[in-house]
Amino acid sequence: MVKPKRLLSLLLRLIAFGATLAAVIIMATSHEKGSFFALSYEAKYSDTPAFKYFVIANAIVTVYGFLALFIPSESPLWRLVLALDLVFTMLLISSISAALAVAQVGKKGNSSAGWLPVCGQVTKYCNQVTGALVAGYQVLGFSS
Amino acid sequence: MVKPKRLLSLLLRLIAFGATLAAVIIMATSHEKGSFFALSYEAKYSDTPAFKYFVIANAIVTVYGFLALFIPSESPLWRLVLALDLVFTMLLISSISAALAVAQVGKKGNSSAGWLPVCGQVTKYCNQVTGALVAGYQVLGFSS
Repeated sequence: MVKPKRLLSLLLRLIAFGATLAAVIIMATSHEKGSFFALSYEAKYSDTPAFKYFVIANAIVTVYGFLALFIPSESPLWRLVLALDLVFTMLLISSISAALAVAQVGKKGNSSAGWLPVCGQVTKYCNQVTGALVAGYQVLGFSS
Repeated sequence: MVKPKRLLSLLLRLIAFGATLAAVIIMATSHEKGSFFALSYEAKYSDTPAFKYFVIANAIVTVYGFLALFIPSESPLWRLVLALDLVFTMLLISSISAALAVAQVGKKGNSSAGWLPVCGQVTKYCNQVTGALVAGYQVLGFSS
């Protein structure tokens, strides 16, 4: 018989797993062809190291989250899972913060560095990155 | 009589406090007048939201780190300190990741977004930001 507390924990882990998976897919598929004056270019996540880090971190946590679903709380491994939860939460926080910081520059630009905002040119790409960040935040909500 | 373990914990907290304080001071005093073609401008931390966040987060942790020095481990508040340690570590991780992501763009630029690297123009400013990030990392090393 599964206890209600265990069931709740499983449900939360399942949602967190879904959210990291969604974050990876949304970010990894985000790309758009844009044009800036005469220049045409393709915006994609792999051009920006912070977004690459976001995808890698979320992919790692997705795999971990999947494996952790199958470890019963009576197992001697459970203490390890609790410790790893903390480590991977920190990894997620770090990757989301980094991606968010670059996304903010993309949205608002940085006039003192002469960086122009790019979201006007590649609106769909920007929305998709925003979606991935929202999915990333969901994970943090559920994992804490 | 102070126990050796308590003494070690105090020492680590003192170093972490010093490192956050150093990170705040180094980042907050970082500014340089640069020129880019005919344009002259002043680079300072407050132009970049991610660097502002870094300063604010480190300032909060500095104040907390100072107060935590005076709470004895026998106090009923000690459990709160242990919980807050975790919360503030996450805050620091987040602020360092965000600042690092923007600093990386400053150093390398991002050709697909058309953002040029700025460190060639404001070398001193860039070095100071790097110094602040190094100080921030020291804290993480000591607090974990």
